[in-house]
Amino acid sequence: MTESLADFLRRVRVQVDDALDRWLPRPPVCPDIVSEAMRYSVFAGGKRLRPVLALAAAEAAASRHTAGGAGAVEARDAFRLALPSACAIELIHTYSLIHDDLPAMDNDSLRRGRPTLHTIYGDGIAILAGDGLHAEAFTLLAREPASSDDAALAARKLRVARVIGEAAGPLGMVGGQAIDLQAADQVPGHRLTLDYDGLRAMHARKTGALIRAAAVSGAIMTGASDSLVAAVERYAADLGLAFQIIDDVLDVEGTPEQLGKTTGKDAAADKPTYPSLYGLEASRALAGECVSRARRTLADAGLIDSQLTGILDWVVSRKN
Amino acid sequence: MTESLADFLRRVRVQVDDALDRWLPRPPVCPDIVSEAMRYSVFAGGKRLRPVLALAAAEAAASRHTAGGAGAVEARDAFRLALPSACAIELIHTYSLIHDDLPAMDNDSLRRGRPTLHTIYGDGIAILAGDGLHAEAFTLLAREPASSDDAALAARKLRVARVIGEAAGPLGMVGGQAIDLQAADQVPGHRLTLDYDGLRAMHARKTGALIRAAAVSGAIMTGASDSLVAAVERYAADLGLAFQIIDDVLDVEGTPEQLGKTTGKDAAADKPTYPSLYGLEASRALAGECVSRARRTLADAGLIDSQLTGILDWVVSRKN
Repeated sequence: MTESLADFLRRVRVQVDDALDRWLPRPPVCPDIVSEAMRYSVFAGGKRLRPVLALAAAEAAASRHTAGGAGAVEARDAFRLALPSACAIELIHTYSLIHDDLPAMDNDSLRRGRPTLHTIYGDGIAILAGDGLHAEAFTLLAREPASSDDAALAARKLRVARVIGEAAGPLGMVGGQAIDLQAADQVPGHRLTLDYDGLRAMHARKTGALIRAAAVSGAIMTGASDSLVAAVERYAADLGLAFQIIDDVLDVEGTPEQLGKTTGKDAAADKPTYPSLYGLEASRALAGECVSRARRTLADAGLIDSQLTGILDWVVSRKN
Repeated sequence: MTESLADFLRRVRVQVDDALDRWLPRPPVCPDIVSEAMRYSVFAGGKRLRPVLALAAAEAAASRHTAGGAGAVEARDAFRLALPSACAIELIHTYSLIHDDLPAMDNDSLRRGRPTLHTIYGDGIAILAGDGLHAEAFTLLAREPASSDDAALAARKLRVARVIGEAAGPLGMVGGQAIDLQAADQVPGHRLTLDYDGLRAMHARKTGALIRAAAVSGAIMTGASDSLVAAVERYAADLGLAFQIIDDVLDVEGTPEQLGKTTGKDAAADKPTYPSLYGLEASRALAGECVSRARRTLADAGLIDSQLTGILDWVVSRKN
């Protein structure tokens, strides 16, 4: 493997942006305002962490199949096969940000350095743009790649649809966000107080589930064995936890300019966070432990020589 | 065919309610509040029009395959095969009602004779419960029936996932709701004025698309030919239009007690409706024409001797 992480990230972002632009519906079949609103949020300059993870997992799993063989060609196929699910997950992530930013939820007016969608089009269109992206995610997954008369491919896509649906739904992201609302005392009569285990369980749903689904979907789309899929999922669980801890740390240490969003909101809302429970230093150490564990998982599964390794360092050393 | 429409409706409702109760996630894997909120809306006593249509189309298509053959057994298989997509569509319909009722959209406090979800749990949980049902719809479709290692079945389910995704998304329901918001002048700077064609196109998206998808999904799941699927879709397009016209008529003629929701809202919001454009009598006549056309479609496709015929009369003669 000679491609640097920076080159890989650039390649993924170009391909994902290009595919999303091609696959998202346009006027006149899509009403102007819905198309504009969806694209405003989809092309807002996100990190594309989930597609990066999905496509890195796909290439890693493919090279593991063919270790010593025609790895290069397999990797190209892996990328093509996993691109639709990678994009689908990014659409789900984007819809969740739109809904989370609403006044009824986190009430954020700044996201990725730009005004949030509802501050521009109003809450109604923001809700609908989110709903539209949510539906498009599954439409795109069912439709692409076009050769869906391939029975093995159909079975894999169906398995991925279930993985993504479960990660996005009440058992995953939606459930986590509901618990977060309760913890922030935003659901009258249903306040929850979270201890460390509760906090971790909430994050495992709210951000962890979709991150795991991204990596798992990439592995599934290349036809990886169940044990390889399981290893990729363990890796992604640790990565997701590290990602969340660093997110909490940046909310304390970062500036709005650096992060492109309002900072210090967790403390202001009296939300439990890793720094509030452990302090900044111990939180960073905790993230470091997750990275070490994830690295061992990769080594044991024969996946250490892949972009999945570099992604670990990227996630904990990021500044936004 | 000896089963009465009333018996068929009863059978569908019992089976659909039972399946939804079995398939919707429960605590502890689903957070309590999300489970409660989703079930409050799913089991609110809806008509189950979309599942009725999906399952009637499945049984009709199956009996058409085997005309003169072992129709009874085929019909039972058809029902079982189409039940997951029928339930998935009902979940999508339910989520759309929850989101449409929000203050940011139609701002309704009464639905099916009960307080709307957001008036009980707040807007945040209502948004999340809707999002949860949306994800569950695709999860359920991908997961059920359990024998998903059947390659032909996987291909059909994937096709249905695309049909449902397109009908629910920006090209369908979400797009129609956005146009409706614009027509009601609820999107500052983006008001739309709808003439008759515009009104029909809006309804074809907002309510028509999912009604068509319901019927089509039932036919696809039984392995119907493309021409039979197309006939079922034409039938459902006319049925959907008749349904919407009668909806508008009932908003004028009905009482809140009868309908279980606030009436007269269209006129109050100065929304264009069939009665406002044509008057009540001509609107009812227009619905009658749709029914006649749909009946001819059924006759031409050899589907007239099915529950699809009775559903036409049910839809136009309903009082709520």
